[in-house]
Amino acid sequence: MAEPLLLFPPQPETKAHTTMSDSEVKIGSYLLERLAQLGTHSVQGVPGDFNMGFLDLIEDHAKLRWIGNANELNAAYAADGYARVKRTLGAVVTTFGVGELSALNGVAGSFSERLPVIHIVGVPSTAAQGSHSLLHHTLGDGRFSAFENMSKEISVDSAVLKQKEGAGEAIDRILVSAMSKARPVYLALPTDLVHATIPAGALKTPLEYSPPPNDEDAEKYVLSVAHDHIAKAKSAVILVDACAARHGCIEESRELIEKSGLPVFATPMGKAIIDEDHAQYGGIYVGNLTTEPVKQVLESADVLIMLGSLKSDFNSGNFSYRTPRSRTIELHSDYTTIGYSHYPGIGMKRLLPKLSAMLAAGGEKRREETMQVVPKFTNVLPDEKGDAISQAWLWPRMGMFFQPKDQVVLWGSIGWSVGATLGVALAARELQIGRTHLFVGDGSLQLTVQEVGTMIKHGLNPYLFVLNNDGYEIERQIHGPQRSYNDIQPYDHSILLDFFSRPKTAQQSQEESHSKDPKPSNKQYYAVKTKKELDELLSDADFNVPDRIRLIEIFVPRGDAPTALRRQAEATGSANKYD
Amino acid sequence: MAEPLLLFPPQPETKAHTTMSDSEVKIGSYLLERLAQLGTHSVQGVPGDFNMGFLDLIEDHAKLRWIGNANELNAAYAADGYARVKRTLGAVVTTFGVGELSALNGVAGSFSERLPVIHIVGVPSTAAQGSHSLLHHTLGDGRFSAFENMSKEISVDSAVLKQKEGAGEAIDRILVSAMSKARPVYLALPTDLVHATIPAGALKTPLEYSPPPNDEDAEKYVLSVAHDHIAKAKSAVILVDACAARHGCIEESRELIEKSGLPVFATPMGKAIIDEDHAQYGGIYVGNLTTEPVKQVLESADVLIMLGSLKSDFNSGNFSYRTPRSRTIELHSDYTTIGYSHYPGIGMKRLLPKLSAMLAAGGEKRREETMQVVPKFTNVLPDEKGDAISQAWLWPRMGMFFQPKDQVVLWGSIGWSVGATLGVALAARELQIGRTHLFVGDGSLQLTVQEVGTMIKHGLNPYLFVLNNDGYEIERQIHGPQRSYNDIQPYDHSILLDFFSRPKTAQQSQEESHSKDPKPSNKQYYAVKTKKELDELLSDADFNVPDRIRLIEIFVPRGDAPTALRRQAEATGSANKYD
Repeated sequence: MAEPLLLFPPQPETKAHTTMSDSEVKIGSYLLERLAQLGTHSVQGVPGDFNMGFLDLIEDHAKLRWIGNANELNAAYAADGYARVKRTLGAVVTTFGVGELSALNGVAGSFSERLPVIHIVGVPSTAAQGSHSLLHHTLGDGRFSAFENMSKEISVDSAVLKQKEGAGEAIDRILVSAMSKARPVYLALPTDLVHATIPAGALKTPLEYSPPPNDEDAEKYVLSVAHDHIAKAKSAVILVDACAARHGCIEESRELIEKSGLPVFATPMGKAIIDEDHAQYGGIYVGNLTTEPVKQVLESADVLIMLGSLKSDFNSGNFSYRTPRSRTIELHSDYTTIGYSHYPGIGMKRLLPKLSAMLAAGGEKRREETMQVVPKFTNVLPDEKGDAISQAWLWPRMGMFFQPKDQVVLWGSIGWSVGATLGVALAARELQIGRTHLFVGDGSLQLTVQEVGTMIKHGLNPYLFVLNNDGYEIERQIHGPQRSYNDIQPYDHSILLDFFSRPKTAQQSQEESHSKDPKPSNKQYYAVKTKKELDELLSDADFNVPDRIRLIEIFVPRGDAPTALRRQAEATGSANKYD
Repeated sequence: MAEPLLLFPPQPETKAHTTMSDSEVKIGSYLLERLAQLGTHSVQGVPGDFNMGFLDLIEDHAKLRWIGNANELNAAYAADGYARVKRTLGAVVTTFGVGELSALNGVAGSFSERLPVIHIVGVPSTAAQGSHSLLHHTLGDGRFSAFENMSKEISVDSAVLKQKEGAGEAIDRILVSAMSKARPVYLALPTDLVHATIPAGALKTPLEYSPPPNDEDAEKYVLSVAHDHIAKAKSAVILVDACAARHGCIEESRELIEKSGLPVFATPMGKAIIDEDHAQYGGIYVGNLTTEPVKQVLESADVLIMLGSLKSDFNSGNFSYRTPRSRTIELHSDYTTIGYSHYPGIGMKRLLPKLSAMLAAGGEKRREETMQVVPKFTNVLPDEKGDAISQAWLWPRMGMFFQPKDQVVLWGSIGWSVGATLGVALAARELQIGRTHLFVGDGSLQLTVQEVGTMIKHGLNPYLFVLNNDGYEIERQIHGPQRSYNDIQPYDHSILLDFFSRPKTAQQSQEESHSKDPKPSNKQYYAVKTKKELDELLSDADFNVPDRIRLIEIFVPRGDAPTALRRQAEATGSANKYD
């Protein structure tokens, strides 16, 4: 495997790169220092009339990289993907009105899936807003608040700066809200305040966003109730879900698994939290879409300890858990339930270490029992006739191709995955972890396809697996398999990478070699139509080196879909019958 | 010029194509019949989990065409462009949550620029909404109203259907709101109500959305005040603006011009309302960006009659009108002002014919005077050295290329123009009027580039002029001319049309020949680097026939911009200083 690019080497903290005197700092720079402190080094967005003064500060900041996406929706998706992998704040910058509204769908997705993202909107000067001018970016009726109202529906906190006094405190407050609640926040930054200065002193203290201690007596009570439940149980298992990661409890979760020795499973959204090679790991639980061996162990357990559960329809097999509440202990960021008992204010960040300590006794014995019962997952290729690449064959074969720490971006809301892949690849490069793989249908690809150009611009080398099944297959599985509205205009994927990167002139290439920016990616396209072709390609040593951006077009039969996706589609279809 | 395609020939009204019995009709079909009655024959949108039962009805409707855009934002832009040219309702269909939010920016633009658009959102069944399920399309907190709240900020009316009773009346109400107020409306259509039936009787009566008569006495009073103003004036001129078209007063405006004999000017957004060959037409007025001869005549007039004024910054040269209010008569859809006097409730649709009748006396004499004073615009090529295509040379040369009834799409909010061109070209084909031309910068093109594929899918043949100036030139004019955030990833436009249309297999071509859909467009790319090359191309007879989709890449020097755009940018930049 190629040596990863190291674009942001760890470096000693320095103030030289900020526009900060000892005591004063520009409001825009204050915000950027906070982002850098949080480990947010890539800033997504699109330039616009009201944000360019702020972009100057980003471009001049030694630790931040301005990404410059193809449009605002893609930028918001990229911020979402970045936040997932970097496990910190994603940031997206847009311009007032026409810019910011295009980002809303992406921000809403981050709200729904609990990711901390700051949406920074460059807005007209406080003077222009005061006079209610009929600017072309407004709705033409003098309402300057309409856009912030819209964003408030999908934000956990927001600040519309009106004056420099208190600006630093407001920025700190919404950043803490985003990080502690794992949800998006909104900041309106008027042009005349970006370069206005405020006291810099607060920047010496990093933001504190870990949750407060639980009430001591209540916590002891909860632990004793949990102890009683577990002590009298013949079997107990742990189910790890997304919010354990979103609320910074990965280490605490791993400690619980180690010390307790219990079997552990993951939901689809909790998949990456526990190492899949871990001896106690048994596989994915997703309600009635679960494989039989996993279902057997998990649903028959006397106690189920759920860490950071996020029961959306996609993540729960359409709400088909068969896990009686009386046998369930749920740990959340700010409350706990045991059976039917609620314990508000008892959060998992503080409770988990104590639960781990409690379960440490007997841990080794439990681990030995665990080894006897947890199902072991191996990728087995089905014995199929025919050359065509079936879904049943494709996924186990891909499973053999993946390496530890590889980042895999799969289905999400249509269009999300391509934008998210940019953010994932940026975060993976900053963290110097594995390769990035996108799996996208030919239909979904079309919504946000231009973000491939941004990947090339930043020299990123993801693997883009395009599953060409001639249309919106997931929608066909739900409704209208023969309907023409599920057909799409076919693109010529063989020239996609060429289209999104015009060959450079000699002069441009020379200028580039002096630039601090990474060189644009090299690129390669592959068309794959049979199992044999795909097998050979994935086995090829050179192919496994992420030294260029690759588009692998896999032709798959129309009407075929992975079993879980098919069942999910059936459930969605029957929930939305039209008669 | 080639014979225009006639895809929707006028045909006798028939009920055979609806799913309507004599007395009952599906709610979805009721809505579609209303769209057809309004002349809305193209429906934009993207399929999704909650709208496909409704798409079935669109696909089966003899008078409607489902467009199937590449994404929801592009669909909303296309609906906007369609409404402008078809001068009726634009329609866009999305799916709950993740679908609808992507369309908001386009709908907001239609709100701001006063275009009637219906945003139809397929939403979960009334039962699923009642139980507040944590669907993957929701925000994960059970709030089903968040999305409709967001749309309400940019809609003039909305209906969230909860039961079949009253559904027809609610649909009629919001359609009338959209048409009479020239602004977007929002309709949430649950999956279980699409095929539920309601009485069909109301469909026999077309919707009535023309404004009510003005109060008779008040109207007489207003006319007498107007008469006094005009009678004692030595000179009077008319300025036509967008809202005259938006509120269905084009014929009434033309009648006023004919009968009064007065000189007439247009704003940028009112440009297409008056025939530019009209003898009384004098050119464009846009505040201090106006050419001197036009400025002279208009600003010195004793009376200025403004029809449907829409004073956004773009449309008014950044609010730089020098037209004293004491000398101005403004006619709007629902009020009139004369000097500083307000007359609420006196709308132009009813007032204009009476004003025309009043000014008919003396019209011929005024017309003769008008001929002496109105400036005559002719396209004059500047005498420049150098082969490079300057903006000063480009636009007069393009002016010579345009034919009457050609539709020209220019700058708007970034990304809007490409989506809008699809809608404009669809409307122009339905109306059998001229060619469609898009002028777009290489930066703006990137935001919504995939909609070119949709143009090809529907066999549309617009001229796509891509002005390649190596980045976001308009933003460079405002701020940061040397900043890298105004650079873009360069695309290879020479293969753009090839990328968005994969060659068909023999079987696909055969299937297509049996389809009722138009054949995909033929295509051609041109690279143009000198004045001579462009001049020859535009003069070529074959090139002038719109028999294929054409992409003409015009390489223009970085840092050059049309004078008006440059002045606009300077004004924007100075209004948003960062110090």
